[in-house]
Amino acid sequence: MPTGVHALVRRTHEERVLRALRGGGAMSRGQIAEIVGLSRSTLSEITGSLLQRGAIVVVDTDAAKREGSGRPAERLALDPGSGQFMGVDFGHRRVHVVVADASHEILVSGSTRYDDDAPWRTRIDLAFEFIDRLSVDAGVHYGALQGIGIGVPGPYPTQPTASPHATAVPALHGSADDVDAAFVGRFDAPVLVDNNTRLAALAEAISGGSAVDDLLYVRLSDGVGGGLVVGGRLVTGSTGLAGEFGHVMVEPEGKECRCGKFGCLETVASVPAILATCQDLGLRLETLDDLRASVERSHPVVDQVLRAAAVAVGHVVGTAAMALNPAQIVVGGEITRIAPVIVQQVTATVAYELFPRPAARPLVRAAELSDDDGAIGALAALFHNSPLLAGYPEADAASQAGPRQTTTEGVAHGRSR
Amino acid sequence: MPTGVHALVRRTHEERVLRALRGGGAMSRGQIAEIVGLSRSTLSEITGSLLQRGAIVVVDTDAAKREGSGRPAERLALDPGSGQFMGVDFGHRRVHVVVADASHEILVSGSTRYDDDAPWRTRIDLAFEFIDRLSVDAGVHYGALQGIGIGVPGPYPTQPTASPHATAVPALHGSADDVDAAFVGRFDAPVLVDNNTRLAALAEAISGGSAVDDLLYVRLSDGVGGGLVVGGRLVTGSTGLAGEFGHVMVEPEGKECRCGKFGCLETVASVPAILATCQDLGLRLETLDDLRASVERSHPVVDQVLRAAAVAVGHVVGTAAMALNPAQIVVGGEITRIAPVIVQQVTATVAYELFPRPAARPLVRAAELSDDDGAIGALAALFHNSPLLAGYPEADAASQAGPRQTTTEGVAHGRSR
Repeated sequence: MPTGVHALVRRTHEERVLRALRGGGAMSRGQIAEIVGLSRSTLSEITGSLLQRGAIVVVDTDAAKREGSGRPAERLALDPGSGQFMGVDFGHRRVHVVVADASHEILVSGSTRYDDDAPWRTRIDLAFEFIDRLSVDAGVHYGALQGIGIGVPGPYPTQPTASPHATAVPALHGSADDVDAAFVGRFDAPVLVDNNTRLAALAEAISGGSAVDDLLYVRLSDGVGGGLVVGGRLVTGSTGLAGEFGHVMVEPEGKECRCGKFGCLETVASVPAILATCQDLGLRLETLDDLRASVERSHPVVDQVLRAAAVAVGHVVGTAAMALNPAQIVVGGEITRIAPVIVQQVTATVAYELFPRPAARPLVRAAELSDDDGAIGALAALFHNSPLLAGYPEADAASQAGPRQTTTEGVAHGRSR
Repeated sequence: MPTGVHALVRRTHEERVLRALRGGGAMSRGQIAEIVGLSRSTLSEITGSLLQRGAIVVVDTDAAKREGSGRPAERLALDPGSGQFMGVDFGHRRVHVVVADASHEILVSGSTRYDDDAPWRTRIDLAFEFIDRLSVDAGVHYGALQGIGIGVPGPYPTQPTASPHATAVPALHGSADDVDAAFVGRFDAPVLVDNNTRLAALAEAISGGSAVDDLLYVRLSDGVGGGLVVGGRLVTGSTGLAGEFGHVMVEPEGKECRCGKFGCLETVASVPAILATCQDLGLRLETLDDLRASVERSHPVVDQVLRAAAVAVGHVVGTAAMALNPAQIVVGGEITRIAPVIVQQVTATVAYELFPRPAARPLVRAAELSDDDGAIGALAALFHNSPLLAGYPEADAASQAGPRQTTTEGVAHGRSR
């Protein structure tokens, strides 16, 4: 081994390669060289040494996908046996768990239900039992957990006095703040907790063909929530409330919102609000399935209600987009799958409200991941170079590689491999 | 000197101390220890060695400011002789230049005028001459320049096809993009260029008693512009257009804007728009001085016009604040000094539009720095751990310390010392 300055340089190079593999999953030497900015020959030395010492392994070659001739490139990854990563999503009525290895391969995945008034202690205990059961059922032994990402509903960190929900939503026994301590106590691994809608925003930013650094995500469901990715980082806000698009006032003379104000976006564009408006207009729609049937029949009144809701959404995200200049605006929630008109109308409204020149407009699209994919978002946050990870030495080191130096397709790909 | 692992640890500690002093200016050992998270005894060793090697110096003690008894604390700083930093602000009609040393002391400062249709080449040449003249007049010899921060009007990077201004504002000969290359060529130092309103936002975030990580800045002047600081970093947006609050539509039936849309905030709340509205109402107001006189006489119509403009501003920044959850909303522009009613009304509108609970509301305040302080903002960007600096090794290293680990009051203090 080299000594002195050479050892330091070598060590720095090794760290950069390991960070790249940690953030991006399996990749070829060529991809690694591009990401870490080393020459091919220097990189070969580094990976040779890392392979010899067992820190990384050859997982496969790209022969199957490769176009053209030439020797197939080996893909390298951190030793998958070096530890697992767990993503957990606590929804209102179920917890979803995903476990992946260091090369981003999903090992096990599943969900279990609980009552929507189940206290946090019960939810956590159910999750622990379920995590054990998953391991047994899948015949997968969890190695040392390297990190746990957890999504929770509602603002996080919890701020009872500041939350718009505090007035209307009865507090569960315990708090989402207990989740962190409970998981650290049970698994002795670094734990990252955040609002699950916000994690979904991060997952959208790094899913698909290419990662984007600036994305605005809004989700229409029981309420209206959202999340922002700015400069490759998830935005928390000064008191943990960033992304609360649902409580922007859009109709000063509108209905009272559970937050105490009137005419919030949530009173117009949440699923219950949309159903209520349809009912006010004499339609018998009680569920999303009823709505789906009406949309399939191209019911003109339903179309009108959905468009009006989407105009309000478009106005709010358009204003936020003027401030943030995102590359993409993503609209999520099951209703957007049922009613494509929502994303169409948001697109039109944003186009009208933003700069007149098409070049300056963000891409508006429906979410790629479903609402059930929160655990993938939590996992993505673990792998991604997120400031959320700043507290943990290894993850912190990874974040220093900078957003441009991290490919993040590994998580999304891992699901389908 | 220690060797091996100990040398690496020691070197890492030294780098953290130097980064802290680079970002925060002069500070006591206690402050440094808190920022870099080292024990007092370890820190004493590190600073002792750095002092001995001349990398840092004792600049003064806090005896004058200190409350209570006890030995006054020495304040340490990077050796001021180790190089200078330059802030340059190109306005529409003048360039302002500030030069500071590594301990954030302002050495020289001044401005010179040019015609508002002067091409970029002329502006740059004038700036170069003026920078030389400043040095001679003040009897200050510039040492090696460590970095140059430059503010320019308009979106940056310049995106002619994307800019809302491209349609209406005649392009100057050349482009703000030339500024970067010209300064690099002249001074052979790292150069950082950004929109000057955005740099003002950064300066506001790190001025005053304590730095804030999340701030939303809007400036009312010939147009309406703004900037965002999110998680301690300046937001550029995906195409360099972040902070364009002026082109959010607030009156769908409103006046045509120079961007081609109708009823943009700029058509309601820019200084020319406010004066035009007063004229439409039969008042003879042509200049800001006329407006000042009317405000001093408490003219009720002027008050009404100003309040209406401020309600529109409050609505736009309120929506953006719901997305971003900033700690502060800052309203700048000379008109806010003339008419305090603007900030009062923005505060009221934001309070009404945001969460009903006071705890969740951002502080709304007038800008502390004047429009002429753009060069200070450019300097602040240099000293601050900004992602803008990511291209430059030393600055990049500083940014890795993370937003929580940087005090930034040094720049603002430097002005008054």
